[in-house]
Amino acid sequence: MNDHGDIVSARTPRLFVDAALTPEAIVSIGPEQTHYLLRVMRLSPASAVTVFNGRDGLWLGQLVGNDRRRVGVRVDKQLKPQPKSIGPWLAFGVPKRHSLETMIQKGTELGVTKFLPIASERSMAERLNVERLVRIAMEAAEQCERLDIPAVEPVMRIGDLFHGWPDDRVLFWCDEHGGGEPFADAADALLDEDPNKPAPQWGLMIGPEGGFAPSELDGLDELSFLKRVTLGPRILRAETAAVVALAIGQALAGDGDNPVRSAA
Amino acid sequence: MNDHGDIVSARTPRLFVDAALTPEAIVSIGPEQTHYLLRVMRLSPASAVTVFNGRDGLWLGQLVGNDRRRVGVRVDKQLKPQPKSIGPWLAFGVPKRHSLETMIQKGTELGVTKFLPIASERSMAERLNVERLVRIAMEAAEQCERLDIPAVEPVMRIGDLFHGWPDDRVLFWCDEHGGGEPFADAADALLDEDPNKPAPQWGLMIGPEGGFAPSELDGLDELSFLKRVTLGPRILRAETAAVVALAIGQALAGDGDNPVRSAA
Repeated sequence: MNDHGDIVSARTPRLFVDAALTPEAIVSIGPEQTHYLLRVMRLSPASAVTVFNGRDGLWLGQLVGNDRRRVGVRVDKQLKPQPKSIGPWLAFGVPKRHSLETMIQKGTELGVTKFLPIASERSMAERLNVERLVRIAMEAAEQCERLDIPAVEPVMRIGDLFHGWPDDRVLFWCDEHGGGEPFADAADALLDEDPNKPAPQWGLMIGPEGGFAPSELDGLDELSFLKRVTLGPRILRAETAAVVALAIGQALAGDGDNPVRSAA
Repeated sequence: MNDHGDIVSARTPRLFVDAALTPEAIVSIGPEQTHYLLRVMRLSPASAVTVFNGRDGLWLGQLVGNDRRRVGVRVDKQLKPQPKSIGPWLAFGVPKRHSLETMIQKGTELGVTKFLPIASERSMAERLNVERLVRIAMEAAEQCERLDIPAVEPVMRIGDLFHGWPDDRVLFWCDEHGGGEPFADAADALLDEDPNKPAPQWGLMIGPEGGFAPSELDGLDELSFLKRVTLGPRILRAETAAVVALAIGQALAGDGDNPVRSAA
């Protein structure tokens, strides 16, 4: 808030826009966002807003224009630089649509930087409406005050996931059949390995409802980056498992112990 | 599974019933559950099922009767005794219906034993359809293989919540304004206090969207059982905050490090 305490408050709308953000730029706001600003939030013309595009940080701006269906924002000054996009990756067997959309929304709230949908024998869809999922992620980013938008990859086979996985990023497989280490212990150990190294990179893999097929799990134990973990004694829905694992991982090996809130 | 490995598998339906469970008892199954068993699951007459009522443990049974709209279950033998119902309590400012129902469903999956809805200046409803919420909890219990059903209390004022709160149960207030200790640290400390004592009792308090009103928070710092905690740097929706806090709490001060799955 600091310099702009009189203009920017926790209630100042935060809008995702596509355009580049530079001083004096005028960026146009789509009809849906315009409707939200003018009808739902009941903002008056020339109200202060903040804008971000996932690349240029957070900027202060002001509504401009007389078209009640499509306003613009005159960009004023940068309030925050773009943070480095660091966070967990989430790979998951594609679940039913409602569960999928919950995963994207909550995953964004919990700091996921990349979503990796896996086509498996028991997963739902071969193709996803990636555009719709990105919009859900954008709205969740606006709401939770994130300045970066997570990537949503196209659906891939589990073999391709493993093939493209970076060696220096631990992949915790939340195996619903149990047998793995409790995830809290594994996450804690990850952070402890070397306190002088930069924050550990990690990701999660959640199976589809019903689990991966045995043939899909062949050779899993040979992957050096893969750690099998368990999330506890109860059977969790896929989207619950994703949120639970992200919560534990962020609390113990992520930014969850950083109580600094984003300021503007 | 053990003795009944030939009959009971992970796919054997688990049904919640109201009736008392004793050997040879015939309990009737409602039309909705009957439809699910015969049409959705396509069970044949005399199929094996398991039943629980939240009081008498888990029982093996067999479908009986010729009415395709309303079958019965002949109760055979007990597979598991009723476990002691130990788990966190969840107090929350009543959110919008979708968020509320998500809290009840996911909270049940995560082992909540009592839900305590709070009426506050910024919460949504003064009255809840408790019956509907209990049904959601029952369905979640069936799905996640819990044998107990959490209680859903009527809506209460925050003062009444504090007044009735047991002194020996820590209440973690997840304050979205920050300033508290990271919850993972607080939960970890709770478990460490005395390893010889029984598992610590704790609960969570989540504010309504927009937080509690300042007047509602008067005197909060004087409550000996209350600890203010933070869930991390991002602003979470109410239902996300509930799931995140339960995940962390169960992982560090609950049953999340117990990888034993319920067996039948």
